[in-house]
Amino acid sequence: MEDPAATTSKKAAKKAEAKAKKEAQKAERAAQLAAAAAKATLEDDPAADRYGDRPSTTGLFSDDAEEVEIPSLDESHIDKTVIVRAWLQNSRVQSAKMGFFELRKSGNWSVQGIVMASEQEPIVSRRMVKWVVGINPESFVAVEAKVKRPLEPIKACRVQGLELHITKCYVLASAPSMLGMTLAVANQPIVNFSDEKAPVSDVQPDKATVPAASMLTHLDNIAMHKRSPVQQAIADIRIEVKKLFRSYLEDRGFKEFEPPCLIGAASEGGGNVFRLPYFGEEAFLAQSPQFYKQFEIAGGRERVFSIGPVFRAENSNTARHMTEFTGLDIEMEIKQSYTEVRDVLEGVLLHIFRGIQDRCADAIATVKAVYPSEPFLLPEPGKEVRLTFAEAQKLLREEGPSEFANVRDDEDMSTPQEKALGEVVRSKFNTDFYVIDKFPETARPFYAKIDDTAATVGDGVRVTNAFDFFARNQEILSGGQRINDPVELEARIRAKGVDPESAGIKEYLAVFRSVGVPAHGGGGIGLDRVVAWYLGLPSVHLAAYYPRTPKRLSP
Amino acid sequence: MEDPAATTSKKAAKKAEAKAKKEAQKAERAAQLAAAAAKATLEDDPAADRYGDRPSTTGLFSDDAEEVEIPSLDESHIDKTVIVRAWLQNSRVQSAKMGFFELRKSGNWSVQGIVMASEQEPIVSRRMVKWVVGINPESFVAVEAKVKRPLEPIKACRVQGLELHITKCYVLASAPSMLGMTLAVANQPIVNFSDEKAPVSDVQPDKATVPAASMLTHLDNIAMHKRSPVQQAIADIRIEVKKLFRSYLEDRGFKEFEPPCLIGAASEGGGNVFRLPYFGEEAFLAQSPQFYKQFEIAGGRERVFSIGPVFRAENSNTARHMTEFTGLDIEMEIKQSYTEVRDVLEGVLLHIFRGIQDRCADAIATVKAVYPSEPFLLPEPGKEVRLTFAEAQKLLREEGPSEFANVRDDEDMSTPQEKALGEVVRSKFNTDFYVIDKFPETARPFYAKIDDTAATVGDGVRVTNAFDFFARNQEILSGGQRINDPVELEARIRAKGVDPESAGIKEYLAVFRSVGVPAHGGGGIGLDRVVAWYLGLPSVHLAAYYPRTPKRLSP
Repeated sequence: MEDPAATTSKKAAKKAEAKAKKEAQKAERAAQLAAAAAKATLEDDPAADRYGDRPSTTGLFSDDAEEVEIPSLDESHIDKTVIVRAWLQNSRVQSAKMGFFELRKSGNWSVQGIVMASEQEPIVSRRMVKWVVGINPESFVAVEAKVKRPLEPIKACRVQGLELHITKCYVLASAPSMLGMTLAVANQPIVNFSDEKAPVSDVQPDKATVPAASMLTHLDNIAMHKRSPVQQAIADIRIEVKKLFRSYLEDRGFKEFEPPCLIGAASEGGGNVFRLPYFGEEAFLAQSPQFYKQFEIAGGRERVFSIGPVFRAENSNTARHMTEFTGLDIEMEIKQSYTEVRDVLEGVLLHIFRGIQDRCADAIATVKAVYPSEPFLLPEPGKEVRLTFAEAQKLLREEGPSEFANVRDDEDMSTPQEKALGEVVRSKFNTDFYVIDKFPETARPFYAKIDDTAATVGDGVRVTNAFDFFARNQEILSGGQRINDPVELEARIRAKGVDPESAGIKEYLAVFRSVGVPAHGGGGIGLDRVVAWYLGLPSVHLAAYYPRTPKRLSP
Repeated sequence: MEDPAATTSKKAAKKAEAKAKKEAQKAERAAQLAAAAAKATLEDDPAADRYGDRPSTTGLFSDDAEEVEIPSLDESHIDKTVIVRAWLQNSRVQSAKMGFFELRKSGNWSVQGIVMASEQEPIVSRRMVKWVVGINPESFVAVEAKVKRPLEPIKACRVQGLELHITKCYVLASAPSMLGMTLAVANQPIVNFSDEKAPVSDVQPDKATVPAASMLTHLDNIAMHKRSPVQQAIADIRIEVKKLFRSYLEDRGFKEFEPPCLIGAASEGGGNVFRLPYFGEEAFLAQSPQFYKQFEIAGGRERVFSIGPVFRAENSNTARHMTEFTGLDIEMEIKQSYTEVRDVLEGVLLHIFRGIQDRCADAIATVKAVYPSEPFLLPEPGKEVRLTFAEAQKLLREEGPSEFANVRDDEDMSTPQEKALGEVVRSKFNTDFYVIDKFPETARPFYAKIDDTAATVGDGVRVTNAFDFFARNQEILSGGQRINDPVELEARIRAKGVDPESAGIKEYLAVFRSVGVPAHGGGGIGLDRVVAWYLGLPSVHLAAYYPRTPKRLSP
């Protein structure tokens, strides 16, 4: 006997199959129409040179027609002749004499096109109408059109107050008659983020009227995945995050640099590092620019940042992990206190969060329409939430779920603890963004600077000048002060059970012995996570351009 | 019998040895002085709390003292008390009562410090004077000082009209008594770029009064290498090149994206690609973002650029090659002609070259003082030099060295040909920057678009809409129009002897079949080469932050 869930999903699969069949029939019909139209010769069809497949548009358009991008279309174009290049979508036939479609460009800017038979110049034949409405969706076309005011605003399009009356239409690059994934499907929430090659249902029975696809289907149809308004919006927000990061730091004297990806030793713990043959030796892919940021400080660069790929050979198939991701890193000299570093990092993240709220309101709305989420709460200026690790654990013990009633101040937090803490912080302080400071030395790498006051927590464990930042309960940044004194550094390396003579460590220590290195600190931000958690996306893979997981290297 | 060159180099080595011995003695003396000073107790020395080693400056300075960065020092500070944190260099003793040194920060900003014994408040003891002048060069110090106008301008320092009368001086991070490479040596031209581990003479006998070191010594003393004014200047110029690249493109609607480094197939010719184990499969490091740039165009992103690492597993140990370098890449839709792409690329490079001339005049002068080179000649606006490949070869045949009298229009240029052509172009057109366009298909990869007019050169070889850009006779950019039609693309793939079903190629072709992809083109610029050749550096390794060669992965 089948269980009811299986039945439901079977029904849904059947429904999807029927839908696909219908779409295939529709596509076939369109192809037939197009074939018929193509048969027409110039003698038969006085409009024959006004439409068709063309490799380029050289010499096709009127001299007085102005080339316009869809976002630039405005009232000033009314009654003028324009040339528009765009993707074609949503064609429909009104009658043998008239058809409609939409032209889309620049992410999600669309405008309505009308093709109407006319026996007066410019002549538009019925065959032309048929041919145009038969163009495969997602083909790239160039049209010449008169701009008109529609009878009523076109609600389906972003350009609502104008429409294009088509007089010429050429297909520059044709899409196939059957798309691997339609734009409508591409813009549905993804139903399955597993990278398993096993077949998965592409159907989300409960929520969607349009079927929804798995991440696997999306990535196998990368062009359609990227063309979806939601992915265009996410990419635009990601760009803005990088810009805000860069401009905030440049305004404060930070200089960009590029750390290497290929390194000679698995210097920061060998577990999760990719190894490769390198001219008879072995090379490794950098897990972070940590050592190189510090070398820049030793080299007198004072305040640096980097934006680039980092690699983790971790066999984690979760919505939070990727094997390659983009790190936003900073490192800076400290004058008086490590809080200077914490303040810059807190400042840049608040600048980013407030900046995208301002600059990307439309894009955020586009994303939320597909992936609804609670608004991302920010602290009011001056009311930033900074808890010490011990305070955070106390909060969790006292106000968190009972399973965390005994968490210790001298042991690192688990992911479930972090999530529970985030809930408490949100309800208590009304923010999704907060800092946990003064981590115990047990939870930090050897380069973390121990607190000057020799404060301890729990079982006599010293605390460090190191912190994590959180967004929607998940870590997005790790940072703190680093040890700059070589004697202290060597002692900590030994205390952590690392051999100071081991490959990578030896050279790292040598830099601090070779010159006087000022006090410094910094932090590393996961760009993909900042974007994903700010937007409340179900997976960090949605924020990446080409997500890399243990099971996926393509496209 | 020894040859004279060997004798000369032996003599030079002896001279260097003597110099090193002298420096060691000097350092020892300084260490002794410092030790003696440290012995002093507060009872002996009324200034004992005004100097010494300190881990931090908390509570050390006067409340009314203003913390100032050296570049910000100006007339307004005269007679005021300031705090300055900086590297200490060039100490010298005037008498038991007086010493001088320089403080350096922010690349190459220096100011003179004077420490003078005083029995009046603020008391400066003779012991303090001794201790301060004994501080190891390249230590990081914090001083409190009164700003004074010097008797005459301090020619040795960038801040010439002010000097600091030191009343407190603390070493926050001490350099060793003997540096692996002094700042003076670090700022000499590098004498040997070989990465061979074999010992090389660090001495350049003819040119330098200060001994010069090999690249090996520089990279083994990475902090001192980076602290040298010349490397600070090169790094600053490199930053400006990236900024100019980015701003020019963003102003023209280009959007940044990040292509992956880890890819699933050696898609662009398998020869020079790094391979690595990847969870039981094989992964490759991207040799260029070519395919991914095109996927962005297929995905409707219209105009994109990327700045990031690319990898070549080429065993070339030359001044032009690295195994990891930074690519500046663009890709854009084409409306009418591939010249739109050529113009954007030419525009961005001219913007970069003119921009750094304007913005980095000081830094360029700093570099030229160490690595003299002819000025980089740019074409006057409107007189850009664009030759077709056939025109360039004709020029080389007719006006180049006789060995190139028979170069063919249908075969790729060799590096010596490129160099010779550059000489001809420079003397004929007075420019170091020029474009060679319309390369024959034999010299281009399968994705290069064949010229529409079906023009041929030489033995009936068709020409492509593809070009290279040159700077000082060396290639810095490759670009052109790509094939966007899947049928044409498959035919070219086959014609180049590549299997359209092979890994990577199959998925690439599938993207062009999956949707309509508009005409597009782009180009890739080697950032390291742009910086190095513009500045006329002897090796591209000088322009990189951490050069990667077949023999070097560290630091």
